[in-house]
Amino acid sequence: MDLQQMDEFAKKIIFEAGSRIRQAFSYNLVIETKSGANDLVTNIDRETELFFIEQIKAFDPTHKILGEEGMGEKVETLDGVVWIIDPIDGTMNFVKQHRHFMISIGIFVNGVGKLGYIFDVMREDLFYGIAGQGAWYNDSPLRKLQAITMEEAVIGINSHWVAPNRHIHHEKVIDMIRKVRGTRSYGSAAMEIAFVVSGKLDAYVSMRLAPWDIAGGIIIAQEVGAIATNLHGGGFDFLHQDTFIIANPAIHRELLEKYIVPYE
Amino acid sequence: MDLQQMDEFAKKIIFEAGSRIRQAFSYNLVIETKSGANDLVTNIDRETELFFIEQIKAFDPTHKILGEEGMGEKVETLDGVVWIIDPIDGTMNFVKQHRHFMISIGIFVNGVGKLGYIFDVMREDLFYGIAGQGAWYNDSPLRKLQAITMEEAVIGINSHWVAPNRHIHHEKVIDMIRKVRGTRSYGSAAMEIAFVVSGKLDAYVSMRLAPWDIAGGIIIAQEVGAIATNLHGGGFDFLHQDTFIIANPAIHRELLEKYIVPYE
Repeated sequence: MDLQQMDEFAKKIIFEAGSRIRQAFSYNLVIETKSGANDLVTNIDRETELFFIEQIKAFDPTHKILGEEGMGEKVETLDGVVWIIDPIDGTMNFVKQHRHFMISIGIFVNGVGKLGYIFDVMREDLFYGIAGQGAWYNDSPLRKLQAITMEEAVIGINSHWVAPNRHIHHEKVIDMIRKVRGTRSYGSAAMEIAFVVSGKLDAYVSMRLAPWDIAGGIIIAQEVGAIATNLHGGGFDFLHQDTFIIANPAIHRELLEKYIVPYE
Repeated sequence: MDLQQMDEFAKKIIFEAGSRIRQAFSYNLVIETKSGANDLVTNIDRETELFFIEQIKAFDPTHKILGEEGMGEKVETLDGVVWIIDPIDGTMNFVKQHRHFMISIGIFVNGVGKLGYIFDVMREDLFYGIAGQGAWYNDSPLRKLQAITMEEAVIGINSHWVAPNRHIHHEKVIDMIRKVRGTRSYGSAAMEIAFVVSGKLDAYVSMRLAPWDIAGGIIIAQEVGAIATNLHGGGFDFLHQDTFIIANPAIHRELLEKYIVPYE
């Protein structure tokens, strides 16, 4: 497995997909609802996933692709080389804001994360990591995350989880927002994960993420020392939906023990 | 009063200030706390405000300047030409993220907003408006905001206001976040206001804004039909802190009547 070669190929198709998406803004978007009003999907989402599938299959037909739009084959194990792809993370931002949406790709070899990419399409900003070799933001190496305190932390969390909900104790979330320096919410999991691995946020939590939302980021996370788990502190399940937290290592445990506490 | 000439001058010094701020990232930031840990201010904030004061006084010494850093004279009335300036709105983003901070400038003539600017320094994106002539995002005219429903709306609101607080009925905010399509929080009032006037968000609310946070945006708002008031539906007080809401005209009244309801 030549990681160097695969890394070059992945970057090439990510930049090309980004360029195609930016061009597509000159056409009209055809917006449909997938499973409800909050789950917008566009023709560009699907075309981008198809583009990735065609390119990857031409590169190596044995590679498997698990994509958000489900246009690849059905992936039931992480045996072999598996690309986990979100062609556009942050579809609502894409449609409404024409910014703040990401291409997210994680490449796993026999279940082990090897290459991770989060690409801010409109800024042409690439966050990426190579297992055991480090992580980069464009041409600059990303540093290991420096320890911070809760009082200094800025947390990515959606306002839904501050209200009573069936997933986590919202009154503990309220304790958290009164303790930390600030909170943010951007509407793209991949963007918030990219911000955590680059120290622009100190944690991000979500109650229901799919593998393609986090696969790219989790590989970058390892290289900078960010800790990513589900809300029970265990490994994220890469073949299903799961809860998710990624945090600066100095506050991950405190967040799970005191502030982001699931029912049951 | 030659608005055209003043507009050209304002853009020139905004672009120059932006360029100086981007260059300054190569130096170390000296960060102090102004009135608490959440209120960071940097030497670049102050230098930028001084730059604006010097430039404006050289342009016309009769113009007055009301700035966040308080380095201009004391402004007690809006008589004459008054520039209301936030050299860096979103200081925490500036320090931590190196993005998502704005220069915001509103120019008032005898109390009437004439020219408004919000400049995303790192993206080099300018939102601006000229009273009676229209509003633009870089070289493109901004359209009048199209009517939307609450169910389609994306609202900028900080998670603090979803928790019990002494300003507004938080249980009504919870009703709102369950009704709308989504919420966002970016940590820069000027950025969220720029997003509302360009249709990237449908409303933004805050409990405690100062004149310099909104002066630029409120002039752009008039030109696109966004409605900006305090939370009692009245005009914002430009010489003091006040509550603030800016919204798509189709939902402004509904927001104030049902969801963003101050105590007393």
